[in-house]
Amino acid sequence: MASKAIAIVAGVGPGTGASVARKFAAAYPVVLLARNPDNYESLVQEINKSGGKAIGISTDVSSPDSLKEAFGKIEQEYKGASVAAAIFNASGRFVRKPLLEMSVEDFGAGWEVSCKGAFLFSQQVLPLLLKNVDDTNSKYPPTLIFTGATASIKANALMSGFASAKFAMRALSTSIAKEFAPKGVHVAHAIIDGVIDIPRTKDWLKDMPPEAKIAADDIAESYWNLHTQSRRAFTNEIDIRPMLEKW
Amino acid sequence: MASKAIAIVAGVGPGTGASVARKFAAAYPVVLLARNPDNYESLVQEINKSGGKAIGISTDVSSPDSLKEAFGKIEQEYKGASVAAAIFNASGRFVRKPLLEMSVEDFGAGWEVSCKGAFLFSQQVLPLLLKNVDDTNSKYPPTLIFTGATASIKANALMSGFASAKFAMRALSTSIAKEFAPKGVHVAHAIIDGVIDIPRTKDWLKDMPPEAKIAADDIAESYWNLHTQSRRAFTNEIDIRPMLEKW
Amino acid sequence: MASKAIAIVAGVGPGTGASVARKFAAAYPVVLLARNPDNYESLVQEINKSGGKAIGISTDVSSPDSLKEAFGKIEQEYKGASVAAAIFNASGRFVRKPLLEMSVEDFGAGWEVSCKGAFLFSQQVLPLLLKNVDDTNSKYPPTLIFTGATASIKANALMSGFASAKFAMRALSTSIAKEFAPKGVHVAHAIIDGVIDIPRTKDWLKDMPPEAKIAADDIAESYWNLHTQSRRAFTNEIDIRPMLEKW
Amino acid sequence: MASKAIAIVAGVGPGTGASVARKFAAAYPVVLLARNPDNYESLVQEINKSGGKAIGISTDVSSPDSLKEAFGKIEQEYKGASVAAAIFNASGRFVRKPLLEMSVEDFGAGWEVSCKGAFLFSQQVLPLLLKNVDDTNSKYPPTLIFTGATASIKANALMSGFASAKFAMRALSTSIAKEFAPKGVHVAHAIIDGVIDIPRTKDWLKDMPPEAKIAADDIAESYWNLHTQSRRAFTNEIDIRPMLEKW
Repeated sequence: MASKAIAIVAGVGPGTGASVARKFAAAYPVVLLARNPDNYESLVQEINKSGGKAIGISTDVSSPDSLKEAFGKIEQEYKGASVAAAIFNASGRFVRKPLLEMSVEDFGAGWEVSCKGAFLFSQQVLPLLLKNVDDTNSKYPPTLIFTGATASIKANALMSGFASAKFAMRALSTSIAKEFAPKGVHVAHAIIDGVIDIPRTKDWLKDMPPEAKIAADDIAESYWNLHTQSRRAFTNEIDIRPMLEKW
Repeated sequence: MASKAIAIVAGVGPGTGASVARKFAAAYPVVLLARNPDNYESLVQEINKSGGKAIGISTDVSSPDSLKEAFGKIEQEYKGASVAAAIFNASGRFVRKPLLEMSVEDFGAGWEVSCKGAFLFSQQVLPLLLKNVDDTNSKYPPTLIFTGATASIKANALMSGFASAKFAMRALSTSIAKEFAPKGVHVAHAIIDGVIDIPRTKDWLKDMPPEAKIAADDIAESYWNLHTQSRRAFTNEIDIRPMLEKW
Repeated sequence: MASKAIAIVAGVGPGTGASVARKFAAAYPVVLLARNPDNYESLVQEINKSGGKAIGISTDVSSPDSLKEAFGKIEQEYKGASVAAAIFNASGRFVRKPLLEMSVEDFGAGWEVSCKGAFLFSQQVLPLLLKNVDDTNSKYPPTLIFTGATASIKANALMSGFASAKFAMRALSTSIAKEFAPKGVHVAHAIIDGVIDIPRTKDWLKDMPPEAKIAADDIAESYWNLHTQSRRAFTNEIDIRPMLEKW
Repeated sequence: MASKAIAIVAGVGPGTGASVARKFAAAYPVVLLARNPDNYESLVQEINKSGGKAIGISTDVSSPDSLKEAFGKIEQEYKGASVAAAIFNASGRFVRKPLLEMSVEDFGAGWEVSCKGAFLFSQQVLPLLLKNVDDTNSKYPPTLIFTGATASIKANALMSGFASAKFAMRALSTSIAKEFAPKGVHVAHAIIDGVIDIPRTKDWLKDMPPEAKIAADDIAESYWNLHTQSRRAFTNEIDIRPMLEKW
């Protein structure tokens, strides 16, 4: 019997999430989670038309109930499926403000999604990743990837909430990696250090060549390469930046 | 006219908080914040009897309202006072659990106090620290110190919530340091890497010499030394560990 | 005209070096550098027999003259060739000794190879990597990879010389990455955190499953994946550890 | 019988070294090491005149013989003395050059002094620091401090040699700290992140207020504070930067 493994991408927008979904859809049925269905609907169609299989579920990753409901739907749709790869790509609202002008909501916005959301998602998905460990038809170790940012390792002025949340998610990723690697789950954290080339950023770095921005498809490529690593060579952290990035 | 500067210690218990309070009470009237008055009452008496000046205010640092109320009382008690030193020493409930057994409350407990609390406290205290910058009678640059832990830089298995919160607080500290140093406020983060010698830990490392544990009074000494640094030599991070610590 | 690009592996032994050589030999003629020809001779034969192309050159990477001679031979053998990938895998003698028992030679052994050698090798190979940037037949950005170790980020007792050298090589790698990325060369540093499964370590971790050691072939796989990254998503550092590693 | 402890400063110039020497001369007879006697002669006179005790010894810290000779002279001058504090402040020649224009000497210049020199100095001084551990008249744990720089944790382009050496010295410091803390020696590393205000830098940052540069006397103050830390609260690393530093 063939493996019934699926891939789940939490946080699908027009950038990394979509590229990752397309890439993993070539190997697995994919589940796309995003709060706003606009963010996955056309992509679900695109994948289904081009021979892949995708569903989208409107989900608020910062809500335990919403996530539980989403995973209930996943179980309905893919009865008994294990998860071969899960990518947490959601990110809290980006707030850049002087500390004294930041509201509690501003400050907590990052944490709610990037850290609490990442925790809640991990709790839902880890049992399904563990299930994949036992699937003898599974080609690669089940993989959980968190998308971080420059702010995961660098806390600049005016970025207190965003950086706090990203530092926190990095700690979460490492803690999970250490707990679940011995059980066969590969956990990795990616520090995306640079501007991703998406519609929203098309006017940024306008006078620079394309190599000043990160291509989302190339992030997806790196995520796939993480997924295919063997149990005898897990990478737990990578950084990714474009050729022309100053760092 | 003499300086009317005070010091505030948030998170006073029988360990670091009490030692820091005693140390800074030698130079400034001190305000002690703790949720449970049991944690500061005898200390307030002790300081007042021995020639210092102290008040305690029951405060939940994770609550904006509670903190606002506390700072209202401070203003009543010390009208027009600036803050020479503020130490954030509160720490969220320590939870050590497998990820799949952790409740959302378990996970968020660290964040609520260590990071959101640190943020809320900073918002209240920074205007008073800035006020101290302008106080020509002030001897040292106003100082804001955050107490971190091993988990601020190392995220171990089963420690996902605690480490996330401590990583987050470290990011917060750095972000504030970068924003407020140019305005004259000295912000520092201390990585307390080891067991502090307090009543609760008296049976830990029992067969080891005293140098296996950190003395809270010696942490206070280091915090005082941070406070006395000049504007031309700010230390933004120190680690502290006992002689016999393995690291 | 087809690309005349080659790959060079410095530091070929029975572990990572050999695996990397085999992997890259599937795409490029490879040059193997090692002090002792025993370390590459059978591998050169193996590659040449199995349809690849390989030469070995006895080289002391810590000697400017020896390296210059080696690159002279490379130019003779592959006239006008550019370098598509260069892997610096040489490592100084490993010395674990109390500081007071360490000779200057012991201490400097790591530096001579891991850092000075890496520097000298980089100086020879970077012009050839830059040449590859201009090669329109080249499929991937030219890549320079340095093999680091746990000691690249963790300096333990008794490891002063080895850790100093590895920290130094990591700094060298980053400095070169920042200087040459804008010119089109991809530089990466790999932190190999664990015991590599080679003949010399076959009795280590004997009672553990194979997942307690790193497979050299899987390191090679990761290096290849680094090489194939696009200019819009360079990874400058990865860690690699086996599933059962404690970290 | 009173303690016969001395302090030794390696790398005395018009900046940090001189300030540290003055500061520690208030408590201990000091020995000043520098290659060029011009760097310590007037300072030796100044200290001796103002009630302290100082000698200078022309020493090349990168030469085992020169260092051995220096410590022979120290033993002659202060028979049976232990060392209460040793500060390694020497730094290799600063070279900022494109990698391909750097000579082997340029590249190695940093290492020779900052790392090999630090190693050689440590080997000479550690037995005397250990001797101080047993001195019951000694007030503070014997202390060995290494002066690092921004480049100790950040490797920029064109700084390959300097950063490599500083990263290496940081590893050395940590390794020694871990080995000798359990024996009672306090080892610390200081990341001096900014321009120090010395004659040579008087035209730098000219239009900025004094708080844009580090005061060498204030570094000395922080070093003294490190020295006075108890065995139950060792700091192994601090950073130091001026109020107006961007980081």
